[in-house]
Amino acid sequence: MSSFDELGFAKIDTHRTERCGAPEAVFCEGKTIEQVAKIIQKMNEGSRNILGTRATKEMFEAVKKEVPAAEYHDLARLIIVRKEDLRADPDRYILVMTAGTSDIPVAEEAAVTAELMGHRVERIFDVGVAGIHRLFAQQEKINAANVLVVAAGMEGALASVVGGLVSKPVIALPTSIGYGASFGGIAALLGMLNSCAAGVSVVNIDNGFGAGRLAGMINSMR
Amino acid sequence: MSSFDELGFAKIDTHRTERCGAPEAVFCEGKTIEQVAKIIQKMNEGSRNILGTRATKEMFEAVKKEVPAAEYHDLARLIIVRKEDLRADPDRYILVMTAGTSDIPVAEEAAVTAELMGHRVERIFDVGVAGIHRLFAQQEKINAANVLVVAAGMEGALASVVGGLVSKPVIALPTSIGYGASFGGIAALLGMLNSCAAGVSVVNIDNGFGAGRLAGMINSMR
Amino acid sequence: MSSFDELGFAKIDTHRTERCGAPEAVFCEGKTIEQVAKIIQKMNEGSRNILGTRATKEMFEAVKKEVPAAEYHDLARLIIVRKEDLRADPDRYILVMTAGTSDIPVAEEAAVTAELMGHRVERIFDVGVAGIHRLFAQQEKINAANVLVVAAGMEGALASVVGGLVSKPVIALPTSIGYGASFGGIAALLGMLNSCAAGVSVVNIDNGFGAGRLAGMINSMR
Amino acid sequence: MSSFDELGFAKIDTHRTERCGAPEAVFCEGKTIEQVAKIIQKMNEGSRNILGTRATKEMFEAVKKEVPAAEYHDLARLIIVRKEDLRADPDRYILVMTAGTSDIPVAEEAAVTAELMGHRVERIFDVGVAGIHRLFAQQEKINAANVLVVAAGMEGALASVVGGLVSKPVIALPTSIGYGASFGGIAALLGMLNSCAAGVSVVNIDNGFGAGRLAGMINSMR
Amino acid sequence: MSSFDELGFAKIDTHRTERCGAPEAVFCEGKTIEQVAKIIQKMNEGSRNILGTRATKEMFEAVKKEVPAAEYHDLARLIIVRKEDLRADPDRYILVMTAGTSDIPVAEEAAVTAELMGHRVERIFDVGVAGIHRLFAQQEKINAANVLVVAAGMEGALASVVGGLVSKPVIALPTSIGYGASFGGIAALLGMLNSCAAGVSVVNIDNGFGAGRLAGMINSMR
Amino acid sequence: MSSFDELGFAKIDTHRTERCGAPEAVFCEGKTIEQVAKIIQKMNEGSRNILGTRATKEMFEAVKKEVPAAEYHDLARLIIVRKEDLRADPDRYILVMTAGTSDIPVAEEAAVTAELMGHRVERIFDVGVAGIHRLFAQQEKINAANVLVVAAGMEGALASVVGGLVSKPVIALPTSIGYGASFGGIAALLGMLNSCAAGVSVVNIDNGFGAGRLAGMINSMR
Amino acid sequence: MSSFDELGFAKIDTHRTERCGAPEAVFCEGKTIEQVAKIIQKMNEGSRNILGTRATKEMFEAVKKEVPAAEYHDLARLIIVRKEDLRADPDRYILVMTAGTSDIPVAEEAAVTAELMGHRVERIFDVGVAGIHRLFAQQEKINAANVLVVAAGMEGALASVVGGLVSKPVIALPTSIGYGASFGGIAALLGMLNSCAAGVSVVNIDNGFGAGRLAGMINSMR
Amino acid sequence: MSSFDELGFAKIDTHRTERCGAPEAVFCEGKTIEQVAKIIQKMNEGSRNILGTRATKEMFEAVKKEVPAAEYHDLARLIIVRKEDLRADPDRYILVMTAGTSDIPVAEEAAVTAELMGHRVERIFDVGVAGIHRLFAQQEKINAANVLVVAAGMEGALASVVGGLVSKPVIALPTSIGYGASFGGIAALLGMLNSCAAGVSVVNIDNGFGAGRLAGMINSMR
Repeated sequence: MSSFDELGFAKIDTHRTERCGAPEAVFCEGKTIEQVAKIIQKMNEGSRNILGTRATKEMFEAVKKEVPAAEYHDLARLIIVRKEDLRADPDRYILVMTAGTSDIPVAEEAAVTAELMGHRVERIFDVGVAGIHRLFAQQEKINAANVLVVAAGMEGALASVVGGLVSKPVIALPTSIGYGASFGGIAALLGMLNSCAAGVSVVNIDNGFGAGRLAGMINSMR
Repeated sequence: MSSFDELGFAKIDTHRTERCGAPEAVFCEGKTIEQVAKIIQKMNEGSRNILGTRATKEMFEAVKKEVPAAEYHDLARLIIVRKEDLRADPDRYILVMTAGTSDIPVAEEAAVTAELMGHRVERIFDVGVAGIHRLFAQQEKINAANVLVVAAGMEGALASVVGGLVSKPVIALPTSIGYGASFGGIAALLGMLNSCAAGVSVVNIDNGFGAGRLAGMINSMR
Repeated sequence: MSSFDELGFAKIDTHRTERCGAPEAVFCEGKTIEQVAKIIQKMNEGSRNILGTRATKEMFEAVKKEVPAAEYHDLARLIIVRKEDLRADPDRYILVMTAGTSDIPVAEEAAVTAELMGHRVERIFDVGVAGIHRLFAQQEKINAANVLVVAAGMEGALASVVGGLVSKPVIALPTSIGYGASFGGIAALLGMLNSCAAGVSVVNIDNGFGAGRLAGMINSMR
Repeated sequence: MSSFDELGFAKIDTHRTERCGAPEAVFCEGKTIEQVAKIIQKMNEGSRNILGTRATKEMFEAVKKEVPAAEYHDLARLIIVRKEDLRADPDRYILVMTAGTSDIPVAEEAAVTAELMGHRVERIFDVGVAGIHRLFAQQEKINAANVLVVAAGMEGALASVVGGLVSKPVIALPTSIGYGASFGGIAALLGMLNSCAAGVSVVNIDNGFGAGRLAGMINSMR
Repeated sequence: MSSFDELGFAKIDTHRTERCGAPEAVFCEGKTIEQVAKIIQKMNEGSRNILGTRATKEMFEAVKKEVPAAEYHDLARLIIVRKEDLRADPDRYILVMTAGTSDIPVAEEAAVTAELMGHRVERIFDVGVAGIHRLFAQQEKINAANVLVVAAGMEGALASVVGGLVSKPVIALPTSIGYGASFGGIAALLGMLNSCAAGVSVVNIDNGFGAGRLAGMINSMR
Repeated sequence: MSSFDELGFAKIDTHRTERCGAPEAVFCEGKTIEQVAKIIQKMNEGSRNILGTRATKEMFEAVKKEVPAAEYHDLARLIIVRKEDLRADPDRYILVMTAGTSDIPVAEEAAVTAELMGHRVERIFDVGVAGIHRLFAQQEKINAANVLVVAAGMEGALASVVGGLVSKPVIALPTSIGYGASFGGIAALLGMLNSCAAGVSVVNIDNGFGAGRLAGMINSMR
Repeated sequence: MSSFDELGFAKIDTHRTERCGAPEAVFCEGKTIEQVAKIIQKMNEGSRNILGTRATKEMFEAVKKEVPAAEYHDLARLIIVRKEDLRADPDRYILVMTAGTSDIPVAEEAAVTAELMGHRVERIFDVGVAGIHRLFAQQEKINAANVLVVAAGMEGALASVVGGLVSKPVIALPTSIGYGASFGGIAALLGMLNSCAAGVSVVNIDNGFGAGRLAGMINSMR
Repeated sequence: MSSFDELGFAKIDTHRTERCGAPEAVFCEGKTIEQVAKIIQKMNEGSRNILGTRATKEMFEAVKKEVPAAEYHDLARLIIVRKEDLRADPDRYILVMTAGTSDIPVAEEAAVTAELMGHRVERIFDVGVAGIHRLFAQQEKINAANVLVVAAGMEGALASVVGGLVSKPVIALPTSIGYGASFGGIAALLGMLNSCAAGVSVVNIDNGFGAGRLAGMINSMR
């Protein structure tokens, strides 16, 4: 029996999601509205949660017609179909942080992804390093986290500072927030890659889904 | 007698197409609608197939008025005027592959170009390396191909993997699909240029026409 | 009492190492031989393992005079002082892989770092994607790993392929191996950042220490 | 039976070379002298031709002790062990061209690679586009070629011009020759990728081996 | 007496134009419609020709209200106010060439600028190097030119080829025409900077005005 | 008592503004209209001046409803709420200069910021180095300034020239004005970073607020 | 009377140093040993302090022969000739900080420059953000500084953190310390340019002299 | 009769030099000593002046054995064989300027090239814009020049300033002098390309020969 479903223009990877306990995911950007609708309709024949990332409202509306249970998370641009009620250990939480308010949409993409996988997610927003006392006011919550996702644009320094404070894995999530020499997230990405703090690794610019998915994966380890 | 037709703003290279057995081609992007229409109208006085690449629907409609036989391939953004019925050896086929669904438009530009040159083209879409069992399910079709075009954005790794599987030329076709550190196709382009697999060469980002044209040229060799 | 020792030119961060169970580490490159020797001599007053990264043989020899127990790992350019005998659960191993032979030094930096933290490390070298059957011959060992470090230069595609095969965290470690358009590891770095596989995150080019340190940190989670 | 030989630090891909009729090849740069010697010694147990690319004289001397039949091509930095006498059809030749004298070493790497595969190779050197009458003096030889390799640094324009002259595949081989804004071959690489000529594809900067290998592969098609 | 007129937001450089015999010029992009109108109105108090570059139609219409003699060159996006009838030696002409049809707008900006300075300008369009016989069909006209402006996007190789054919100054004018790895004109710019042909110098991407202005300046020398 | 106000999506840094005597500032770009309105409404509960940078007219209108005293500076895209009447020493003025008319919006962002801090600001616009006599006509005003902000796009050379004329700090403010190889302000930024003139430092491209804020800070020193 | 001394290959700018109270400075890199010696010999005829930056030991020895009072600061690569004993207000000190030990040479170039101008300089080394408690242990000394120079390589985040702590000007001094994606200081430079902290401006990578010179200039303001 | 001499590895372009009245030139970098010697020996059979650029002392010594009349210009790294005594109109001079002392070698390459073509060359060195009064002290000499070559590294602003002062062609010659964000001449190159001054065009970084050759070509026009 094949481990994927063939749609001609897409091969839905049922095999992978079986292995990971993660939602079936589809990257919507660059696909037509029809393709997105058909892919999610096909996925809906299975029993897994479904996540459509970088989805427009128009895509959601087309999906909604075929899959009435679909929800749309406007800020994070996610289409969600909840089919399982997963519950990970609530004592171990993932902490999602942002340097600024403008980084919240990407951070929410990470947070919602991890929540859909059943994890408890805590949030601390707008604690950029230029006002570092805001960060230290949250130190208890930071120290108690099991895995951390740190979303930051501009200079991206928050990941280094947080990485130095904790001894848990920090997933650095550069965002495209900024202007001028931020170059669409390159400055933040480079800053994070050059972090001297132990335990910091980096995902692609604006890749909230990848960060949330990895955070959930690590948080499940025992 | 001159080997090109002079339109003032364009010199139609009748000479080259005579040599290659390929369609007369015009790169439409950056030209005015009027220029495109006049160029294709002029080309239509000859007996070759005609291909307008990166053409908008508006350009097509202007062409259609002058050349009623013109067709438009929406996904691949191609204007096509079929004037010859070319038939290459059907036992030798060109295989056009994509890593994702979003790479299909560029892949189709390659496939349709080669088909217009008379070649048999097979397609395998959405077999990116992150779910490599989808690729191996197609191994027979891959092994039997005579020339391969591999379209991929993001990390572009599919070209290397395919290049390692076959002993036929692989034309790596980077696409601008991706976000963040894909930098509009640069990541895929660099990945393909650095491929260690023998027989891989690379064309410009999103240059489906060039890939299809070269695939047809190689597939004609004997 | 201060959580670091002050040497004037360096502040040894005794605080951090207490928290993490990791070796005290010093990045040797760019420091003078005398500075390296004094820092490691100072660290040697404590009870932790010590790791000097990117160390030259000359640095090691100066250290050796002050700290006779120091060892040198030539390939990985590491100075090691073993003071603790840490033993993590041997059933959970970290798998360190390389795409090519030339990536081994950076991979060894990761492997030795994790071993010094007490982890069992397995190695699979020279399984680049251009000859992917070499990779699949190792699939059992890959599937059974708890955390994976994948070192690759050139196109860096191995991380994506491995990330698609497993449902454990993959730490992608780009190396500066390559020439021409590899741009000292940029091509591999970009390829890894653009990976579609779930669970892949990236560290700096040639940062074997960081990869090994993070692998150990994740492998300790329960 | 395994399709590769395991040396621990390297897995020799006997499988691939069986498929392609090409030499067994080892990329020597970044490997230790001992590794190169052991790899070639192992390869020498088989019956294929062997090619070590980007090899230093010191590497060659270490190889020579183990494999007395080894030769060294100084200009192209190739170690060669001839074990088969392959002969392709001499009526179909590969033409290797350079824009300047300084591009010859890279071009020779391509030419010798193709010759070792049994192909007839013709050479035209120092015909850069800034003195284009030198190119046209060779037009007969250019037109009669079956596949062309065009090596050029600086602006790399020769590939476009040649691509426009012929209706055979042109493998554009950018070299790192140049200074200032040539950026180690980037200018030539970009020029070649942007070529409007049909049938042009590009390999990595200074990748003479890859160009020669692909040229041989295409020249064998029928 | 001051050599410039003060408008607060702009200082019109009456001094410079007196020296050069060139039109008074204003770079319109990035200025408000009101600013453009006021600057040209102020310039109109003098006796020089006026040229507004990178001007929108809206800017022109606002200018036209204040300066009824103003004309608009749509393709080249120029606002022109003719106040002098300058006539340079018609035996010495400036030749403006393009590689493609899409380069014509930038080339026209150069040509019209030089014509406004009184120079005779000849044009040859669409003679890119991928079909080099189209270029050679014009060799007589090329050889007889006194100064040449060569506009090209994509690989920009035309400037090198023309520079090798003539012994007159060639002003290479890179355009932003292209896609993918043309990077908005960078590929053409780098190609032109690396030209080995004597007598080639380069202006900014799409800087037709600068090229035309310099061509006029050189063509006036005696 | 906390030194910041918590809005969930933002933490208003009341602490910092207390220390510096500067306005409370909010970077509006990338925030929703609602977020901007709520942040400024919250800030308005304090007694400091408020500055919203990179604000759209829509944002202003939403703010205006909640904070009727709010003003909008169209050119500089600033929302301003004046709550204090600060007056610095009028004998020491900050001089804000631009190379061109198009640089004025960014320069005004700097000037208005400094004025809101109570400083006297003088302006000299459109004195780019290509017409350097315009600059020297202002030498008296330049020499008498206490701190200078120099906004320039394109080649950004004005900062170097001014830095060589004065012995006061020059804050170089690159703007994104230009086209082609100005690369959105990179050329100006690099030019300014490479200035040999003493006393020149650089802020981010288009960061008028930062330049004005720093100018005010330095101008307050005694 | 001329304001500079003419040496043919150099024009010593006696004019500028008269204005600023700063040392006469010569950038030694790229000059011949003879040129450096002659320039400093000529400067020695005046009464100002002299500073040769980026000087090799060989340059110093040649200078020493002509100017016996010359000293050499090995770490900072400075040639110093002390001719004035300048004393600025000791209550106002400049604080020079580094993120790591390897940043000390560049930081010393800044510190010594400012000291030669008569300023009191305090130093805090090795307080990178990945171990931020080391930084906060110094907060008193940081808060009391009048101007700050923050030297950092890798991610360069220290400048942002310090900028958020103080309300005095922070001169961010990126260093080329790092590896991989630090790109010779680019990551640090971009991080610093994107700092959200008020009062931060940036000088060129490794430009310790410029940072020290500007710090002295600001510290002299009253 | 052929217009070039064939050496196998090089084709000496006797045709081009006949047309231009310029020296026969050979770019020596990247060629072997033997190749350089043979090329110049072959050129010496003709009657033209010969120029070897970017030549090492070792190359010169090998040439000297075959061509005793050869001279070596150490600073500009030129091999010169004087065979003609060309004399252009001495009233029209080419002015070669540098921003700094370190730019002199590249400037001399330009100056010597033009002198060998028979032109009178004047020199003004070390007049960078950070001390602009040094430049204005030379204004008479600048105004009287017929063509100008402006060599500058770092920010490269001198070309813009000079271009604004004169109404003659200015050939901007970026040099690789600088450090940090000068990126080997890129900052200067970009600055020059973005110059707003009329009449400025740019050659490759460090391309003194090209600048001198073009200056001579323009200076010969009448």
